[in-house]
Amino acid sequence: MALTAPVKEAATSAQVTRQKTIGYAATAADAALAPFSFERREVLPRDVQIEILFCGVCHSDLHTARNEWQNTIYPVVPGHEIVGRITKAGSEVTKFKEGGLAGVGCMVDSCRTCPSCKDGLEQYCIPGFTGTYNSDDKILGGVTYGGYSKTIVVNEDFVLRLPENLDLAAVAPLLCAGITTYSPLRHWKVGKGQKVGIVGLGGLGHMGVKLANAMGAHAVLFTTSANKKEDGKRLGAAEVVVSRNQAEMDKHLDSFDFILDTVSAAHDINAYLNLLKRDATLTQVGAPEVLNVSPFSLIFRRRQLAGSLIGGIAETQEMLDFCGEHGITSDIEIIPIRKINEAYERMLKSDVKYRFVIDMGSLG
Amino acid sequence: MALTAPVKEAATSAQVTRQKTIGYAATAADAALAPFSFERREVLPRDVQIEILFCGVCHSDLHTARNEWQNTIYPVVPGHEIVGRITKAGSEVTKFKEGGLAGVGCMVDSCRTCPSCKDGLEQYCIPGFTGTYNSDDKILGGVTYGGYSKTIVVNEDFVLRLPENLDLAAVAPLLCAGITTYSPLRHWKVGKGQKVGIVGLGGLGHMGVKLANAMGAHAVLFTTSANKKEDGKRLGAAEVVVSRNQAEMDKHLDSFDFILDTVSAAHDINAYLNLLKRDATLTQVGAPEVLNVSPFSLIFRRRQLAGSLIGGIAETQEMLDFCGEHGITSDIEIIPIRKINEAYERMLKSDVKYRFVIDMGSLG
Repeated sequence: MALTAPVKEAATSAQVTRQKTIGYAATAADAALAPFSFERREVLPRDVQIEILFCGVCHSDLHTARNEWQNTIYPVVPGHEIVGRITKAGSEVTKFKEGGLAGVGCMVDSCRTCPSCKDGLEQYCIPGFTGTYNSDDKILGGVTYGGYSKTIVVNEDFVLRLPENLDLAAVAPLLCAGITTYSPLRHWKVGKGQKVGIVGLGGLGHMGVKLANAMGAHAVLFTTSANKKEDGKRLGAAEVVVSRNQAEMDKHLDSFDFILDTVSAAHDINAYLNLLKRDATLTQVGAPEVLNVSPFSLIFRRRQLAGSLIGGIAETQEMLDFCGEHGITSDIEIIPIRKINEAYERMLKSDVKYRFVIDMGSLG
Repeated sequence: MALTAPVKEAATSAQVTRQKTIGYAATAADAALAPFSFERREVLPRDVQIEILFCGVCHSDLHTARNEWQNTIYPVVPGHEIVGRITKAGSEVTKFKEGGLAGVGCMVDSCRTCPSCKDGLEQYCIPGFTGTYNSDDKILGGVTYGGYSKTIVVNEDFVLRLPENLDLAAVAPLLCAGITTYSPLRHWKVGKGQKVGIVGLGGLGHMGVKLANAMGAHAVLFTTSANKKEDGKRLGAAEVVVSRNQAEMDKHLDSFDFILDTVSAAHDINAYLNLLKRDATLTQVGAPEVLNVSPFSLIFRRRQLAGSLIGGIAETQEMLDFCGEHGITSDIEIIPIRKINEAYERMLKSDVKYRFVIDMGSLG
C-alpha cells in the first residue's frame, strides 16, 4: 500500500481542538523521566485515538531523552512501540473501528508525495517523515509526543492492525525492533537455503534471529558473550558464534549470503564483511559513530555494506501479519512506568532479555 | 565465457622447457627499476607467446615495486596492461594465431573450478587467481613476471583479442584501468537516463568518464582541481563538480543512481554517499587504507557501499569489443622503458594525462 493524498485537514493549529493527556517526559538531558501533562489534538476526520496499553522501550528513547543525538526538544515524551485499543475513530476513518486493537510505530506522518512515499517507503521520505516523538507536529504545532503516555491520536494511514492471537505486550516491540530487522531481511531476499548472520543479541538482534529463522534461513548468531549461546539457539539460531573467538570466526569466511548487523557499539565491521560470499551484503541497522571499512574487505569479493531504516507502513503491516502467522513476538520484561529510569540504566548494561515494555495501565 | 578445464599440462616445473628473456625489475623496495634477465616457459600446447609492444603503467606496479602492500617477492617485473603480437601458438591453441594482436591483463590463470571461476569471474577466484606478476608461477615454479619485458607466455584462456581499429599503445591501459571501471559500471547496470558520478580524474577516473558516457549515462566527474574542469568535459563528462566546493556538492544531494569512486588517497566517503539516491550504490575501485563510513549516510536512504576488482576474462573481452565499437582508448603518454623510474615519480604527483605506456621496443 502506497499512501494516497496528503493530509489536507492539516490546516492551522488554531483550528484544531485540543484535549489533555498525561505521560512521562524528560525535561533536560540530565533529568530523570517524570510525570508530565500535555495536549493532543481531538480526532480529525481521518484520525483514530488509541488508549495506549503497552509501549516498548527502544534505545532511541534513551538516546533522545538524554540528547545524545543533539537534536532533542524538551520536554520529550519518548516511545514509538505503541499498542492499544481504539477509543475513537474520525468520521472518515475506513480501516479501523472503535474497540479494535491498533499499533503505532516510529512514524505518524510523512510528505506522501515524494518518490519514497509514493513507493510506500515513508521511512525514506525526502523532506523527512514525522517521527512519533521529537518531530515537528505539523497539525497541532510544537513537537510530537510519543507513547509513554495514556493516549495518542494518529492519522489512520500511519496506524497498524495487530494480530489478535499474540500476547499484546510482546507485540509492542515489533513496531520498531521487529520492522527494523524484518525490512532488510525481506529487501535482501532472505529465505530457504541461505546462511544468514545476525550480529548482536539485544532488542534488535533477538528479533532478527526469530525472523530469519521463520523465513527459512540457516540463522547464525554472532555474540561477544559465550553465555548467550543457549539462549541464541532457543530463539532460533542454528549456530551461535562467539565473535571474540578468531578460530570460530575463520570457519565462516566467505560463506554468508547476508548479514544483519544490529550492534550500535563500536566494533570491527571488517571481521563480518570478510564472512560474506562474493556479491553478498552486510546491512547495518545499529548506528555506531563510525564504521572503519577496509576497502579490500569489499573489493576482493565485490561485497556490499548497506544501511536500512525501520520499514514502510505497508511493510510494517506485512511484518505484523507474518508475526501473527508464525506466532512471533518479542521476549520482554514488563515494567510499570515509574521504573523507566531504572530500566534505562539496565539497558545500558544489556541487562534485559530482550526488551522492556511499559504497562501503561501503571500510569494511573 | 566461463573457463573450462583446469590446466592439466601444469605437471611439474622440471618438465617445462625454459627460454631466456629480458625486462626491467626492481630488486628491492628502495631500488630503481633496472634491466633484468630472466626465464619464461616455452609454449605449452595451449599457450601463446606474445612479443610485447606496449605495456601500461598502473599504480599497482609502483605499489608492488616499492613493497607498499608488504607482499612483494624480489626481483619483481611489474606490468599488467600488456599488448603485443603473437609470435608462437601452442599445438592445441584454438583462439589465436601467430601474427595476430593479443593482450594480457592482471591475471594469467585461476583455479578454474571454484564457483567464481565457473561464473566467469576469475578475479574473485576463491583460492586466488595467478597474477600477471608477483604471484606463484604454478607452471614454472618461482614467481610470475609481468609486462615490463620483451615477451610473455600465457595460456590462451587468459589472453584477450584486441580491436584492430584502435591505437595499440592506447589500448594497453584498457587491460586494467579499462576493465576496472567497465566491470562495475556494467554490474550496477549503468545506462541511459541515469546520473552517474565518477570520483577522481586519473588513470581509472578518465576511463570511467569515457565509458559511463559511452553507455549513455549523464556522467558527472568529481575532482579536487578546478583546472581539470575543461578536460573532464572533453573526456565526456556532462558536468564537472569541484568536490572542495560545498555549495556545488550540495546541489547534487540524493540525486545519483550510481557513483564510481576511483580515488586511492584518503578522502571523505560520506560526502559522496550522501549524493546517492535511495537504494543506490557507490562502488570503490581505488583502495585508500580505510573508509570512515558514517552509518547514517547508509541508513537514511538504504544506500550501499561496494567494492569491485578488475573484471573476469569474458567481461574483459566484452569491454575490449565495446571500446572497439565506440572508439574508446586511454589518453596516454608514451615513454621509453629507461624513463620508468621518472614516470613513477611523476605519477605520484598526478603529472600524467592520464596513463603512461611503455614502448617496449625501447628495451632493445
